[in-house]
Amino acid sequence: MDMTRTELSALGEFGLIDRLAAAVPLGRQASTRKGIGDDAAVLDLGNGRVQVVTTDLLLEGVHFDLTYCPLRHLGYKAVAVNVSDVAAMNALPTQITVSVGVSNRFSVEALDELYAGIALACEAYGIDLVGGDTSSSRQGLVLSVTALGIAAAAEVVYRSGAQPGEVVCVTGDLGAAYLGLQVLEQNKAEYMANPQMQPRLDDKDYVVGRQLRPEARMDIIHELRALGVRPTAMIDISDGLASEVLHLSRHSQVGFAIYEDTLPFDNQAAMVASDFRLVPATVMLSGGEDYELLLSLTQADFEKVRKAGLDLTAIGITRDLSEGNYLVTKAQEKVEITAQGWQAFRQG
Amino acid sequence: MDMTRTELSALGEFGLIDRLAAAVPLGRQASTRKGIGDDAAVLDLGNGRVQVVTTDLLLEGVHFDLTYCPLRHLGYKAVAVNVSDVAAMNALPTQITVSVGVSNRFSVEALDELYAGIALACEAYGIDLVGGDTSSSRQGLVLSVTALGIAAAAEVVYRSGAQPGEVVCVTGDLGAAYLGLQVLEQNKAEYMANPQMQPRLDDKDYVVGRQLRPEARMDIIHELRALGVRPTAMIDISDGLASEVLHLSRHSQVGFAIYEDTLPFDNQAAMVASDFRLVPATVMLSGGEDYELLLSLTQADFEKVRKAGLDLTAIGITRDLSEGNYLVTKAQEKVEITAQGWQAFRQG
Repeated sequence: MDMTRTELSALGEFGLIDRLAAAVPLGRQASTRKGIGDDAAVLDLGNGRVQVVTTDLLLEGVHFDLTYCPLRHLGYKAVAVNVSDVAAMNALPTQITVSVGVSNRFSVEALDELYAGIALACEAYGIDLVGGDTSSSRQGLVLSVTALGIAAAAEVVYRSGAQPGEVVCVTGDLGAAYLGLQVLEQNKAEYMANPQMQPRLDDKDYVVGRQLRPEARMDIIHELRALGVRPTAMIDISDGLASEVLHLSRHSQVGFAIYEDTLPFDNQAAMVASDFRLVPATVMLSGGEDYELLLSLTQADFEKVRKAGLDLTAIGITRDLSEGNYLVTKAQEKVEITAQGWQAFRQG
Repeated sequence: MDMTRTELSALGEFGLIDRLAAAVPLGRQASTRKGIGDDAAVLDLGNGRVQVVTTDLLLEGVHFDLTYCPLRHLGYKAVAVNVSDVAAMNALPTQITVSVGVSNRFSVEALDELYAGIALACEAYGIDLVGGDTSSSRQGLVLSVTALGIAAAAEVVYRSGAQPGEVVCVTGDLGAAYLGLQVLEQNKAEYMANPQMQPRLDDKDYVVGRQLRPEARMDIIHELRALGVRPTAMIDISDGLASEVLHLSRHSQVGFAIYEDTLPFDNQAAMVASDFRLVPATVMLSGGEDYELLLSLTQADFEKVRKAGLDLTAIGITRDLSEGNYLVTKAQEKVEITAQGWQAFRQG
């Protein structure tokens, strides 16, 4: 028996996913078009249609903190983050399943709140909750959501389709969700020290809202379709811009040049970043949980999108892979974007 | 603000599921044929085909105990219990997603074992692993599996299709998985008291195997198809025969008469039940985790199945709902089957 012990941290999340996917080779079902390795799996339904399938696990103490995350918002977010993965495939969400593990510290009324949030999200995205599992848990709240979506086969957008010479865009703005988390954590710490304290969130409503109740950008998907525009590659920004740029680079085999002065940053986010003495570009590159879309467009398609005034900003261009991935700072310095975006940029 | 607190235990699992399903009404997607309330959801794929979707959450300390459940078996079982739900719809499994939450007490090699079991199950059932999520966990091992399956719309079998005057059958035998759990728990307790102890499982291999590595009865589904037989109603036996009989009764609006002397019990199970001083009928009615199929067949179809020698036993008949659900004991007494099958039968 091999007694070797390799720590999970030695592989990292993406190394681990690659290893586990390799342990279970595909090829038993002809309908499987794409397995692990994009925002969602893609299954052939016949008749030129495909289904996308994505799933997320949300664990108390890892992904959310119930001391400041209301259960209704958590229910909404659990659905939205899965719909965001469907959006990143350029597909339309159709159904979800939700499994929940709860300890008996939760009441029926608490679960009602959670499901009220789930119901709101189902209404917002036009989807049906069709299944799930409920279980007792000894271990805090466990949520597992699987989302299904549909698209014409020709509409689906993978991480792998970008070509050199295209326009790199992001929807909305970046970094606010991370800053919202800092505000919530600070308030929690202050409250722990002094339970009489009233939280002061009035002028931080935008960043806190971005953390607690993100929206999937289905609005953009519908608008792109109305314009007849199909991104060449797309991914949702859950782990921070730097990480997602590297995913697109690896899958599409192109390099990315991102321009710091173009990165969209909300005014309130700028104020909060200043309060926390955080560098805006660092927050935008590595903050995570924005659930915006990073996409590449042909120059002709970008012109259509620009003229139509979509909530979308050009932040860079794609190049040959040999040119690498880098951020051009406001001082016109080139800083390489690496997998440890946060640290890498701090060094820059 | 309503400060009422209702304990989850006041509703029970099925009451809770009904309440949560009602909180999120269906009707936004025309493709949704069946939502919560059967072994799997059913979605219309067009062209007379449907997809079934089912999901299960498995939590350490609730659904499995790693002190005696090898990770390879756990991986296999996590897939098999979902495939069993697909089988119960008379559908064929196609793809699964697997999400896993692990604390850093797990090594890469431990996850390799888990995924080796998942890979074996994917091979056994001919399915592809197409997605998932990995997360750190502060809460022990968390596993969430979603399975997809496919069938012609006319092939799908719901819980609701039984009519009075049909033959009630179960596949395989009953109660052994529950007895296997008793053996494993007893060995664990003895080992805790005396770590020098060697487990004595040689003559309990069948019941232990039924607990640790159940198989979904896809073999029966394929055999029924080959015979041109479609059950009128079907459910998998995860919570014990009594509970599943009541589900079929409620959904089909028929009564069930089950005959104790017909219930299939393995010889080794009988020996172990005797060791533990457990009443066989109680174990079979309420043991759970058998992952066999409970189904109703027209009398003509039952004749076909009987002649073909399928691993399937007639255990009763369906009646008018007004006649209720009861077990006819070996002493020819009629004992009502109730939701608390275990306690109810003990009183009988």
